[in-house]
Amino acid sequence: MAMMNAKQYEESLRKLNLVVYMFGKRVENVVDDPIIRPSMNAVAATYELAHRPEYEDIMTATSHITGKRINRFCHIHQNTGDLVKKSKMGRLLGRETGCCFQRCVGMDTLNALSITTFDIDKKYGTEYYQRFLEYLEYVQEHDLTCDGAMTDPKGDRGRAPHEQSDPDMFMHVVKERKNGIVVRGAKAHQTGAVNSHEIIIMPTISMREGDKDYAISFAVPSDTAGITYIMGRQSCDTRKLEEGTLDRGNQCYGGHEALVVFEDVFVPRERVFMYKEYEFAGSLVEKFASYHRQSYACKVGVGDVLIGAAQTVAEYNGVARASHIKDKIIEMNHLNETLYCGSIACASEGHKEPSGTYSVSTLLANVHKQNVTRFPYEISRLAQDVAGGLMVTLPSEADLRSAEIGPWLQKYYKGIDGVSTEDRMRILRLIENITLGTAAVGYLTESMHGAGSPQAQRIMISRQVNLQEKQKAAKKLCGIKEEG
Amino acid sequence: MAMMNAKQYEESLRKLNLVVYMFGKRVENVVDDPIIRPSMNAVAATYELAHRPEYEDIMTATSHITGKRINRFCHIHQNTGDLVKKSKMGRLLGRETGCCFQRCVGMDTLNALSITTFDIDKKYGTEYYQRFLEYLEYVQEHDLTCDGAMTDPKGDRGRAPHEQSDPDMFMHVVKERKNGIVVRGAKAHQTGAVNSHEIIIMPTISMREGDKDYAISFAVPSDTAGITYIMGRQSCDTRKLEEGTLDRGNQCYGGHEALVVFEDVFVPRERVFMYKEYEFAGSLVEKFASYHRQSYACKVGVGDVLIGAAQTVAEYNGVARASHIKDKIIEMNHLNETLYCGSIACASEGHKEPSGTYSVSTLLANVHKQNVTRFPYEISRLAQDVAGGLMVTLPSEADLRSAEIGPWLQKYYKGIDGVSTEDRMRILRLIENITLGTAAVGYLTESMHGAGSPQAQRIMISRQVNLQEKQKAAKKLCGIKEEG
Amino acid sequence: MAMMNAKQYEESLRKLNLVVYMFGKRVENVVDDPIIRPSMNAVAATYELAHRPEYEDIMTATSHITGKRINRFCHIHQNTGDLVKKSKMGRLLGRETGCCFQRCVGMDTLNALSITTFDIDKKYGTEYYQRFLEYLEYVQEHDLTCDGAMTDPKGDRGRAPHEQSDPDMFMHVVKERKNGIVVRGAKAHQTGAVNSHEIIIMPTISMREGDKDYAISFAVPSDTAGITYIMGRQSCDTRKLEEGTLDRGNQCYGGHEALVVFEDVFVPRERVFMYKEYEFAGSLVEKFASYHRQSYACKVGVGDVLIGAAQTVAEYNGVARASHIKDKIIEMNHLNETLYCGSIACASEGHKEPSGTYSVSTLLANVHKQNVTRFPYEISRLAQDVAGGLMVTLPSEADLRSAEIGPWLQKYYKGIDGVSTEDRMRILRLIENITLGTAAVGYLTESMHGAGSPQAQRIMISRQVNLQEKQKAAKKLCGIKEEG
Amino acid sequence: MAMMNAKQYEESLRKLNLVVYMFGKRVENVVDDPIIRPSMNAVAATYELAHRPEYEDIMTATSHITGKRINRFCHIHQNTGDLVKKSKMGRLLGRETGCCFQRCVGMDTLNALSITTFDIDKKYGTEYYQRFLEYLEYVQEHDLTCDGAMTDPKGDRGRAPHEQSDPDMFMHVVKERKNGIVVRGAKAHQTGAVNSHEIIIMPTISMREGDKDYAISFAVPSDTAGITYIMGRQSCDTRKLEEGTLDRGNQCYGGHEALVVFEDVFVPRERVFMYKEYEFAGSLVEKFASYHRQSYACKVGVGDVLIGAAQTVAEYNGVARASHIKDKIIEMNHLNETLYCGSIACASEGHKEPSGTYSVSTLLANVHKQNVTRFPYEISRLAQDVAGGLMVTLPSEADLRSAEIGPWLQKYYKGIDGVSTEDRMRILRLIENITLGTAAVGYLTESMHGAGSPQAQRIMISRQVNLQEKQKAAKKLCGIKEEG
Repeated sequence: MAMMNAKQYEESLRKLNLVVYMFGKRVENVVDDPIIRPSMNAVAATYELAHRPEYEDIMTATSHITGKRINRFCHIHQNTGDLVKKSKMGRLLGRETGCCFQRCVGMDTLNALSITTFDIDKKYGTEYYQRFLEYLEYVQEHDLTCDGAMTDPKGDRGRAPHEQSDPDMFMHVVKERKNGIVVRGAKAHQTGAVNSHEIIIMPTISMREGDKDYAISFAVPSDTAGITYIMGRQSCDTRKLEEGTLDRGNQCYGGHEALVVFEDVFVPRERVFMYKEYEFAGSLVEKFASYHRQSYACKVGVGDVLIGAAQTVAEYNGVARASHIKDKIIEMNHLNETLYCGSIACASEGHKEPSGTYSVSTLLANVHKQNVTRFPYEISRLAQDVAGGLMVTLPSEADLRSAEIGPWLQKYYKGIDGVSTEDRMRILRLIENITLGTAAVGYLTESMHGAGSPQAQRIMISRQVNLQEKQKAAKKLCGIKEEG
Repeated sequence: MAMMNAKQYEESLRKLNLVVYMFGKRVENVVDDPIIRPSMNAVAATYELAHRPEYEDIMTATSHITGKRINRFCHIHQNTGDLVKKSKMGRLLGRETGCCFQRCVGMDTLNALSITTFDIDKKYGTEYYQRFLEYLEYVQEHDLTCDGAMTDPKGDRGRAPHEQSDPDMFMHVVKERKNGIVVRGAKAHQTGAVNSHEIIIMPTISMREGDKDYAISFAVPSDTAGITYIMGRQSCDTRKLEEGTLDRGNQCYGGHEALVVFEDVFVPRERVFMYKEYEFAGSLVEKFASYHRQSYACKVGVGDVLIGAAQTVAEYNGVARASHIKDKIIEMNHLNETLYCGSIACASEGHKEPSGTYSVSTLLANVHKQNVTRFPYEISRLAQDVAGGLMVTLPSEADLRSAEIGPWLQKYYKGIDGVSTEDRMRILRLIENITLGTAAVGYLTESMHGAGSPQAQRIMISRQVNLQEKQKAAKKLCGIKEEG
Repeated sequence: MAMMNAKQYEESLRKLNLVVYMFGKRVENVVDDPIIRPSMNAVAATYELAHRPEYEDIMTATSHITGKRINRFCHIHQNTGDLVKKSKMGRLLGRETGCCFQRCVGMDTLNALSITTFDIDKKYGTEYYQRFLEYLEYVQEHDLTCDGAMTDPKGDRGRAPHEQSDPDMFMHVVKERKNGIVVRGAKAHQTGAVNSHEIIIMPTISMREGDKDYAISFAVPSDTAGITYIMGRQSCDTRKLEEGTLDRGNQCYGGHEALVVFEDVFVPRERVFMYKEYEFAGSLVEKFASYHRQSYACKVGVGDVLIGAAQTVAEYNGVARASHIKDKIIEMNHLNETLYCGSIACASEGHKEPSGTYSVSTLLANVHKQNVTRFPYEISRLAQDVAGGLMVTLPSEADLRSAEIGPWLQKYYKGIDGVSTEDRMRILRLIENITLGTAAVGYLTESMHGAGSPQAQRIMISRQVNLQEKQKAAKKLCGIKEEG
Repeated sequence: MAMMNAKQYEESLRKLNLVVYMFGKRVENVVDDPIIRPSMNAVAATYELAHRPEYEDIMTATSHITGKRINRFCHIHQNTGDLVKKSKMGRLLGRETGCCFQRCVGMDTLNALSITTFDIDKKYGTEYYQRFLEYLEYVQEHDLTCDGAMTDPKGDRGRAPHEQSDPDMFMHVVKERKNGIVVRGAKAHQTGAVNSHEIIIMPTISMREGDKDYAISFAVPSDTAGITYIMGRQSCDTRKLEEGTLDRGNQCYGGHEALVVFEDVFVPRERVFMYKEYEFAGSLVEKFASYHRQSYACKVGVGDVLIGAAQTVAEYNGVARASHIKDKIIEMNHLNETLYCGSIACASEGHKEPSGTYSVSTLLANVHKQNVTRFPYEISRLAQDVAGGLMVTLPSEADLRSAEIGPWLQKYYKGIDGVSTEDRMRILRLIENITLGTAAVGYLTESMHGAGSPQAQRIMISRQVNLQEKQKAAKKLCGIKEEG
């Protein structure tokens, strides 16, 4: 079974024994929990679409280790074509789900590790890369969803990991055993954590010698003893508990983040991909970050949905032909396609790493992500402009269904002929969902901070551009003789 | 009793017998309803602050009809100083409540009517102005909160009121009685409706002769027979029903909007301020709109809160001294104060109308509001940037209080020394509240559409600027001889 | 003669014996020099308009020391009404001249000195304020134009004035004489310097005790021995030397800046307004800067011209009714009026200083100027968008006049019927002048750097906003107990 | 000789007998004219760089018709790799010349014709494609520079070509001869016209049957009898006539535009590529426009120069380490690389046309160009911010060389140690050149209007995005059942 379908994926999750907390209580049935389930549905879409013939080229790939057809989310990029398809897959799934489908983080982790484990081995003669390849084959063979976990709580940002007053502020090894290591710490903001079969840990910053015990990377099954998941709450999350589904906006899909606590978790040696090689921590972070910044191609797909919703509500409101409305729709498209350009360019300008893996252009991936921290906010603003104020003053679905006042809503909230009040409410609720509700968490705030906050990208841009070359060009043109 | 305090205001509301629906059911106790109450608290603040000596100059005024000290919200502006103080009152209350305090709409309606009723009388020898003054005295004497109601459902936007297939798409007179009129229709997006003692109706667009029966303005008590209120729902509204208050962000205040349905409501003659004088409908709309666009000075106050929250979370995160953080705080302040400039300038450049009422500069009020449709979105984006991703991945208050997992949150979500995890969560929840939650409805979407959508302001800007004068100046400078 | 007219002003300049260099040569006749003259014309407009009855209220004021009617440029602001009128005067003259009319810098210097000399006297019992008042009366009586000179070359920006390797990098006293002082140094970017009767020196930064000899302010006639003016060149400056005037764009007006070198210039004691009181240097800078940031109200007037030109060319091109063109004109107006709001608000929110002089709101003046560093660039971009590419591909006036090819230009560059090709060229040349040519120096780059570069305003904004107050409001709303 | 070098190119131009007018007079020696020569130098760079080994891959290609190594500017794109290299060639040359190097317009014309001539033949069995291939071989063989000429004067924009009162407002056939046609009309804004060997005419808009005589495309040598060139003037053009070169900013390179008048010019049949096939006019325009919008990749290279200049002047001013300066440099780079992403993405997402030629993605090319109408303006604004006010108040080179005042400039305009005042002036003059001077014509106004004004791209974006698909995705997600 190299490729699961959605049903099989759901069943595979049922076999996990995760320790998940939400609203202060243990969640007994994670898969069927009404708040969590939409996020499971979104991951399931990554399995489902891989079986649709029309998406085969985008959603699947041929494993370079087994030669089998696999889900692209388990694939190691073998050329720039793979990288470009990854961007297109992100847009496709963003459009299909209208939210964060969570699975890219594992793909990005696998690809980053395929580079760094090779590089470490080259320097130290270690055997991480071989271990990694075996693990990769296991992941590909079972078509697993992996949570790539990077962000530690960090404590006092002015201090290195080993200088923290609480040593657990960065995940670290607390004990070495013959056949493995025992780790403690936590990873915050873990996207899709409770929908994952595996969790792969990476360090979160560059490290120095004193941080050796913090320089670790490894993988464990998500239900390994000692791991606890605490669900983050989202704007409008409890609408999913209400009767009726109209007010959710997005009827089926969502995302989630969790705090994942590791309380003395044992990791067998064959799942350790870095330990003590502190000078590769920064490089692993940077590789992962670049891939993951590319992954924000998905927001282009969510943008597609928001643009489609804005156009639809404009039609329902009877104003789609007003020139200012048309112009706003164009601007939304323009910004959205500018994001698309970034996701394509950083891929098509990729290069081959020593391990054979193809990496995106670090500079352009950072430029792309920087735009992602801006444009979705403006696209959302324009969507709200087009939608009209009703988006935030609309009564509830229960009011619509009420025998007493429902008829008034039917009467007074009617749009153009041929469109039901209910459909008008549905599309408005979708825009609310993406710009203020559960999906806004992903479309806006995660676009800001996911894969690194804006300033992180600016620092990378500053490092990656070749200022000297530009200065040389300028000096030459105006006749300044360069020293030396 | 010319000025109520908060307690008296609350008691006065208890005497009303409003017909309010929410989530499909009649609300039995409006004042104590947990979803509605924060909005009542916000209106109550307009009463409370009027009794604080330090705000006396801003919050109160001397009635030009009775000479008594009254709440400024009941005042007719007598000079540009009054207009400037109105802007400052808006900022003050926005900062105090962090949300929409709802009462400005009544003030703006009273002022607009003080101009238009006078103008109608002047043309037709009617007696609207006298009626209005009597009504005004009643409002001032009892320190009432009025809901100024303008926005009709409008139906097919390409047709005039009297051309609609459903005649109720614009409020209209269905019957004339000896001592008054009977009206039918609805008003949407009514801010603070169920916290109001009175509801004052205005037409929503310019009208022609065929629309005579729609050209009406009048006031009735909010609990008049035939009026039904249907509450709009807001992002995160039901958090107010949860145990604990931390996750609300704003602990005490909120806003609300409602759809108000008039089903054959009787209006006594002495409360009718316009009826059939269709050619004044547009003028009344414009006067009200200008005043109400000025009123968005309140968003400067909400901006103050958001800036304060961003600075606080930056300090809690230990990054307040980073140059990029400081720069973002400066930018937030810059944009916020630019809005303030607009609210002050349109007031200080006001002028006297024939009735003696002072009106804001229409051009600058529209320019101001246009900026309000933009800057709060950017200020919010910057606040989210400064806040960090935790704002949307934070577990619930119940998790924090849980004996099992609470300690982990305490440990792993700690900020700098001396700041509790709970306080860090509180300030993050406030930013969530203003940028994604219940207050985002007011700070963002209502900033966009309240007092007219962006395009409405652009049309007014286009009408109010003197292009000919500018062209003349340009032609003179480049040597083009003007024809004629 | 308390108020000169333009003719008298020109004659008064002829009596000066200025040492002016341009293009490496001494300018023999400054007043009639074709490059300089347009800037003289612009200053002359400040005299001329003061005699027009329709502008009397804006252009003139009553001296608080003599009670005479004087040109407002010589006036000390006695109330916020004066400050507001100053902003309006700036816009008026910007619209009349389409460029920098240079005289505000002297007005701002006089007002700043009226505050600081008083404050120094109060602390030290000196007699600067009395000296200043006598000088002010002289300026008012003769209706003089003063160059307020602040910006020193500064040398190594990391060092204080007295620490510079070249002591002349900041103007300083090189010798004390019985009846005065001898100074050396230079002031850069001096707007309108060679059109001025007087030059008033101020320090350019805050100073410490070691900088005592640099803490000087004084006034001297512009043709005092030892002063040399070196003219800065501007984009397209030499078009003023060409035959024909069409290609100038602005037919009559312009601005200029000069480097002013003081080579051991003697200043009599009665013209010294500060000497050694280093702790007032920063305060004088800040007062002047705030007034001068307000003065950028003039750019609203230049914006009026540019908007008028854009509308005119849109009409000539036959596209004025296209919705996207109308929208761009609206946006230009919106941005321009937002600037106007800033210039009005910082004035109407002014306050009285101990000396009796009214000062603008420092915070809002900085906010205003910060917007001036942005919006004119966007207005220019929009003007170029509306104008079309012909603005930069248009042949010369000589081509138009040519018997051989002129007819082709007439034929192929014709706009709509009724408009001559020449007029179309004229309006395009005006837009070129303001966005790329001599006036762009004032409308763009000086908007950026005049009265302090953008970062200077950001620092002031950061200092002037009350962050604590905002944090207090935020903490209160989310339930954080303030320490203490 | 398949590839000329710069010297050979210059010599080849000397053999032409062009009729060129400037400042109302015939230019006798075009190649050596001081105003025109820098633009010739820029085209020459396209020849010179093709001979440098390090640029071979970017600057040259293998002809698909002859198999010879040719200059890429003469190449028909055979795959997306060619398209990507074209974008990189544009950036390279923009960085090398700091201006418009003019030759891309011919390349874009050839490629567009290679598609359209094939398509016409397919429909009508004509022989345009064969003719075109023969012409192409001639161009490749002689390494010619072609001026692709599209923009007609257009007259009344509300009327079709054949409805104009002056029939010459669009180029058209005035007579058919046995062996060819005679044409009349003019093409405006012709970039690099007088540096070209050939001129290739295309229609400028979509046409209908009545416009048959206007639906023409053909090529003629640039010095064909009946063709007259009238040079457009640029900001600061005459600085190139002054003694000394410092004030030019860019010491060597520039661009130019001209109005090209065709007065009854004979075109032999074998050079006609379209005649009467009006329904292909729009398609040719669109193909050319898409290629040419991609070509604005060159502005990324000019942006490199401007960023390099800004960084250099920041260093010379001693402020390069200030955090706000670093942040502005990052922002300039971010915007510049965002443009680069667009130029790469529209190329790598290209597709094969029936003729075998590869075409860019029309949607993304338009999105790219739309950003080019915005970002260079903001990059320029930031460059002026970083540069400081001295950029526009700097005296002339003659002042610097003057024995009397030169020493003062040396003294007072010195930057940090180790940098001469002259070098500081040089770099400031370069920034002036790009943001206000001759190069601003290309970097700003042509970025706005070249290859179509902003609104043209917006219309194309609106046509190219698949709104239905987006609406379908949105409706599905919120539960709206699609009709049908």
